[in-house]
Amino acid sequence: MPLINAESRGVFVIAVTPFTETMAVDMRSVDTMVDFYFDKGADGLTILGMMGEAPKLTQAEAVEVARRTIARASGRPVVVGVSAPGLAAIGELTKAVMDLGAAGVMVAPPGSLKTDDQIAAYYAQVVETLGADVPVVLQDFPLVTGVTIAPSVIGRIVEACPSVVMLKHEDWPGLAKISELRAAEAKGRRRISILCGNGGLFLPEEMARGADGAMTGFGYPEMMVDVVRLAAGGDLDRAQDVFDAYLPLVRYEQQPGIGLAVRKHVLARRGAIAGDTQRRPGAKLAPRAVEEVERLIARQTRRLGEIG
Amino acid sequence: MPLINAESRGVFVIAVTPFTETMAVDMRSVDTMVDFYFDKGADGLTILGMMGEAPKLTQAEAVEVARRTIARASGRPVVVGVSAPGLAAIGELTKAVMDLGAAGVMVAPPGSLKTDDQIAAYYAQVVETLGADVPVVLQDFPLVTGVTIAPSVIGRIVEACPSVVMLKHEDWPGLAKISELRAAEAKGRRRISILCGNGGLFLPEEMARGADGAMTGFGYPEMMVDVVRLAAGGDLDRAQDVFDAYLPLVRYEQQPGIGLAVRKHVLARRGAIAGDTQRRPGAKLAPRAVEEVERLIARQTRRLGEIG
Amino acid sequence: MPLINAESRGVFVIAVTPFTETMAVDMRSVDTMVDFYFDKGADGLTILGMMGEAPKLTQAEAVEVARRTIARASGRPVVVGVSAPGLAAIGELTKAVMDLGAAGVMVAPPGSLKTDDQIAAYYAQVVETLGADVPVVLQDFPLVTGVTIAPSVIGRIVEACPSVVMLKHEDWPGLAKISELRAAEAKGRRRISILCGNGGLFLPEEMARGADGAMTGFGYPEMMVDVVRLAAGGDLDRAQDVFDAYLPLVRYEQQPGIGLAVRKHVLARRGAIAGDTQRRPGAKLAPRAVEEVERLIARQTRRLGEIG
Amino acid sequence: MPLINAESRGVFVIAVTPFTETMAVDMRSVDTMVDFYFDKGADGLTILGMMGEAPKLTQAEAVEVARRTIARASGRPVVVGVSAPGLAAIGELTKAVMDLGAAGVMVAPPGSLKTDDQIAAYYAQVVETLGADVPVVLQDFPLVTGVTIAPSVIGRIVEACPSVVMLKHEDWPGLAKISELRAAEAKGRRRISILCGNGGLFLPEEMARGADGAMTGFGYPEMMVDVVRLAAGGDLDRAQDVFDAYLPLVRYEQQPGIGLAVRKHVLARRGAIAGDTQRRPGAKLAPRAVEEVERLIARQTRRLGEIG
Repeated sequence: MPLINAESRGVFVIAVTPFTETMAVDMRSVDTMVDFYFDKGADGLTILGMMGEAPKLTQAEAVEVARRTIARASGRPVVVGVSAPGLAAIGELTKAVMDLGAAGVMVAPPGSLKTDDQIAAYYAQVVETLGADVPVVLQDFPLVTGVTIAPSVIGRIVEACPSVVMLKHEDWPGLAKISELRAAEAKGRRRISILCGNGGLFLPEEMARGADGAMTGFGYPEMMVDVVRLAAGGDLDRAQDVFDAYLPLVRYEQQPGIGLAVRKHVLARRGAIAGDTQRRPGAKLAPRAVEEVERLIARQTRRLGEIG
Repeated sequence: MPLINAESRGVFVIAVTPFTETMAVDMRSVDTMVDFYFDKGADGLTILGMMGEAPKLTQAEAVEVARRTIARASGRPVVVGVSAPGLAAIGELTKAVMDLGAAGVMVAPPGSLKTDDQIAAYYAQVVETLGADVPVVLQDFPLVTGVTIAPSVIGRIVEACPSVVMLKHEDWPGLAKISELRAAEAKGRRRISILCGNGGLFLPEEMARGADGAMTGFGYPEMMVDVVRLAAGGDLDRAQDVFDAYLPLVRYEQQPGIGLAVRKHVLARRGAIAGDTQRRPGAKLAPRAVEEVERLIARQTRRLGEIG
Repeated sequence: MPLINAESRGVFVIAVTPFTETMAVDMRSVDTMVDFYFDKGADGLTILGMMGEAPKLTQAEAVEVARRTIARASGRPVVVGVSAPGLAAIGELTKAVMDLGAAGVMVAPPGSLKTDDQIAAYYAQVVETLGADVPVVLQDFPLVTGVTIAPSVIGRIVEACPSVVMLKHEDWPGLAKISELRAAEAKGRRRISILCGNGGLFLPEEMARGADGAMTGFGYPEMMVDVVRLAAGGDLDRAQDVFDAYLPLVRYEQQPGIGLAVRKHVLARRGAIAGDTQRRPGAKLAPRAVEEVERLIARQTRRLGEIG
Repeated sequence: MPLINAESRGVFVIAVTPFTETMAVDMRSVDTMVDFYFDKGADGLTILGMMGEAPKLTQAEAVEVARRTIARASGRPVVVGVSAPGLAAIGELTKAVMDLGAAGVMVAPPGSLKTDDQIAAYYAQVVETLGADVPVVLQDFPLVTGVTIAPSVIGRIVEACPSVVMLKHEDWPGLAKISELRAAEAKGRRRISILCGNGGLFLPEEMARGADGAMTGFGYPEMMVDVVRLAAGGDLDRAQDVFDAYLPLVRYEQQPGIGLAVRKHVLARRGAIAGDTQRRPGAKLAPRAVEEVERLIARQTRRLGEIG
C-alpha cells in the first residue's frame, strides 16, 4: 500500500461522508464518490476530516468508512483524519486504518494547547503513540482549532518528528507562512510536503509560493486538479484563468456554516453521491440557496466555455 | 432499575475513571471507587463526565466502564455523560447504557450553539433522538462549553421537553440563576431537580437558594454529603462550618488544569483507587503540589476535629 | 445636516484612517480620501470602524478625524463608529460627533453579551444613553465581536428602539438572515435599512435578497457602487459580471490579518492617501504580497476591459 | 517620586474607581479610598486595572483619577494600568501618568497575540514606545486576556526588556509558574518582582513558592497585608490561619461577573467609598447577595476573634 511522504504532491480531495435519507452511512455512495474524485483527476483522498462529519460518526462507522474507501481506491493513497481528545483513541483508530491500508493519518491540535512548547510536545506525544512508521499530516487550521502554530514551531516539529511528512496548510492569512517554511528548507531544514486547504480560495498564490498541491474539498475538484497541474507546470496565468472561472462558486461554498450543505448539494447534483443528507445537527441547503448555487453553476459553465 | 426524576435530590458524585500504570482502564479500581463513594454517603454517581476523562476513552471502553459501574452500584442510580458532537453517537451510547441500567443521561450543549433558539432546538433534537422515556440531565457549564444558557431558555427547554428532569448547575456566577429558576416554578412552571457543580465551591449558598443537592466531584465527597444533609435539614450554620473546614482544599482542587490531578491523588491516597494515573494528555500531580495538598489535608483534619 | 434613516440606501464606504510616516493622523490625506470615495460614487462614509484603526486612536484624535471628515464631506452623510467598553464613553463620543454633523453612529455589541436578553438589553441601554434622536446603526459582525445576534433578536431591538434605523450586516453566513429580516417586515415589522459588509464578498446575492446596499471597504469602491446600482436596477447579471471581475482582489483583500495592509496599499497606489502606514501593532504589506496584488490588479484591469 | 523595581514587595491593592449615584467619578471617595487602603497596611496601589472599570472611563477621566490618587498617596507608589489596543494610546497615557508621579505602568497583552514570538515582540514594542526609564508590570491574566504566556516567554521578555521589572501573576493554575520563574533566576536570570492576583485565592501557596506579595483587590485588604507579612516572616501556619478565616468571603468575591459588585458593596459598607455604584454595563449587588455577604462577614468576624 502506498504511503504519503515528504515529496507527495497533487490534489488530495477532502471527501464528504454520504448518508442515506435515514442518516445511515451510504456505503454505495462512498464507492461512487471515490470513483468520481479519481475520475476528476484526484491524486489521493482524505477522509474523516472536519468536512467529513467525522465527529458525528461512531468509531465503528469511522472504521467502516475507511475500509470501504480504501478498498475502492484500489491502491491510490487515502489519508485518514484521526483527531480525537485522547491519545488512546487516536492510537486505536490509527492502528485500525493503517492495517486497512491507509496512506497516513492527519492530526489537528486540540484547542487546549496554548504555547509553543505545548504544541511541540503534543506532536511528540502523538508520534510516540502512533509509532515512527506511520506518516503524519499536521493539520494547521487555526480558524477552527483555535490553535495558532508559528512557522518556527512547525519547524521544531519537523525536526523532532521525522514521521511528520506533510502539512495540511489552512492558516489564514497563510501565504507568508508557505514562504517562510520554504525559506527555512532552502537553508537546510528537512523538506515536507505542503498541501493547502481553505476550499482552494488562495490556491494560485499558494502554488506560486511553493505549495505542492491542495488538500481540500470543492464540488468541482477538477478546478483544483487543473490549477495545481497548470501552476506546477509554470503556467500561472492559465491557472488563474481557470481559478477565476470557478471562484464565484468557491467563494459561495466557503461560507462557514453552510459550506458543507453547498458541497453535498453540488456532489449530489453531479451524481457523485446519491443524496445531500447531513447528519444532525446539520441541514440541507435551503431552496433559495439552491437557486443561488444553480445560477453560479450556469455562469461558471458559460465562463469555462469562454476561456476554452 | 431506578431512574432519576424531577424530585431527585442528594449527592451524585462525579466519578473519575481510574487507569492502571499502563493506562488501561482499571476495572478493579472502578469497583473500589464505587464502594468508596457510596460508603461516604453518596446518593448516586455520574460517570463519563468531563472530569471522568470521557473524551479520552474509546466508545467500547466507555460502555465497559458504564457496565462495571452500574453493576457494582447494585441498584443505586448511575447517570452517564453521553455528550458528543453528533446526535447519532449520543443516541447510540444512550441506548447502550440505558439497556445496562443507567438512571439517566447527561448532555452538554456543543460549542457551536450561539443563540437562544439554537440551544432550545438542540435539546428538542436530543430528546427526539433519545426517546421520551430516557431521563435527561441538562449540563449547564459555560466556562467549559462556551455556551451560556439564560434561565428563560432553561425554562423553554423544561416546558418543551418533559424528559429533561434535572439541571446540572455549573454556571458561574450562578446563584441568581437558581433563585430565578425556583421563582419561575413558584409561578407554575414544572419543577426540575437542580444539582450543583463547580466542585462544591458555592454549595452552602446554592442549597440556601433552593438547590436539591450536588453533582460534582471532590476528594472528600463526605463534605458534600454532610453539607447537603445539614442544609436540607435547615442547619445552615453547621453546614457552613463543615464546608469552611474543607474549603481550603476545595479551592485547591478547583484549579483549572490540575484539578483532576489533585482529585486522583487524594482518591488514591485514601484507597478509593489504586493509582492516580491520567490518560495523556494529562499528568500526575507534581511533588511540590503533593506537599501542598498534604499540608492542607493535615490542617483540614485538625479543623474538623475542632468543630467536632 | 443629513441623518441616516430606515430608507437609506447605496454605498457607505468604510474609510481607513491615514497616517503619516511618523504615525500621526494624516489630515491632508483625510481630505483626499474623502474626495476619492465620493468621486468614485459613494453615497456616504463610515469612519472610526474596526478597519479604521479606531481603537488605536486617542479620543481627541477620533474627534479630530470626525471633524475633518464631516467638514470635507460637505453635507454628504458620515456615520461614525462609537463602540467602546463603557456607555459613558459611547455617549461622550456620540455627543461630540453629532454636534459636528455626523449622520448617525454605529455600535457593535461588546463580547461580554451572551444571551438574547443581554443583547436586547444592551441596545436599549445604548439608545437610552444616546437619546432617541440619534440614528443608530447596529453592527452585526460575529466573526470579530464573538456575539451572534439571531434575526429574532434584531427584530426585538428594532421594535423596542425606533432610533435603530440601520443594520450593518456582516454575519457569516448571512444571506438567510437578510431574507428572514425582510420576510418579517413583509408581515408588518418596521423596516430598517440593511447595508452589507464583509468587503462585498457576497454583494450580488445580498442585493438579490433585499439589501439596500453596502457598508464596507475595498480598494476599488467603484465595484460596490456599480454592483449596487446595477442590482438595484434589476440587472443582476451585469452586476455579477462586474463583481466577478473584481472578485480575485476582493478575495485577496478579505484575508484576516493582512486585509487592511492590502487596502491601504491599493488606496495609496491610487492616490487616495499619501501613504499606506498603519499604526502599530500593524504592518505594511510585504514585498511578495505587493507583487501578488499588482498581478491581480493588472488582470482585473484587463478583465474589466473585456466586459466593457 | 518612588518607582517600582525588581525588588518591590508587599501588597499593592488593585483600587476600584468610585462613582457617584449619577455615575460621575467620585473624587472625594478616591481620597477616602486611598486613605483606607494605606490605613489597612497597603504598600502601594494599582489603579485603572480591569477591576478599576478603566475601559469605562474616558481618557480625560483616567488621567484625573491618576492625578487625584497619586496626589493623595503622598509619595507612596501608585502603578497605573495603561493597556489599550494601540501603542499610541498606551504611550500617551503612560507619559501623562509618569509626569504625574506614577511608580510604573501595567500592560496586559492584547488578545490578538497568538504565538510565543508575537508576545515577546509585543512587549519589545511596548518598551520601545514607553522609553527604557518607565518601569513596566507585565500583567499575566490568561482567563481574561485569552493570552497564555509560557514561563520561557516571560524569561525572554525579562532578558530583552530591562524595564520590565514586575510580573502581576494571575495565571490559573499558576503555582508551578512561580516555581519555574524562581528556578530560572536561581540559575542566573535577572530577578523580577512577582506580585500575585486572583483576589488572593492562592496567596499562602504563592508566598511559599517565592512570590513577593500581592497585587489584587479584596474588600478586606488587611487579609493580604497580614498573610504577606506573616508568610514573608516564615510563619506560614499563622498566615494560613488568617487566610482561612477570610477564605469564604474571598471565594464569594471571586465569582466572575459579580465580583466587583461584592467588592464595592463591602468597601462602601466599611466607609472606604461613599457608594457602590458601577458604571453601566454593571450593576449593584442584588439584595439576596447582600444578605449572603453580610452572613459571611459576620462569620468571618467571629472566626477572626477565635484565632486571635
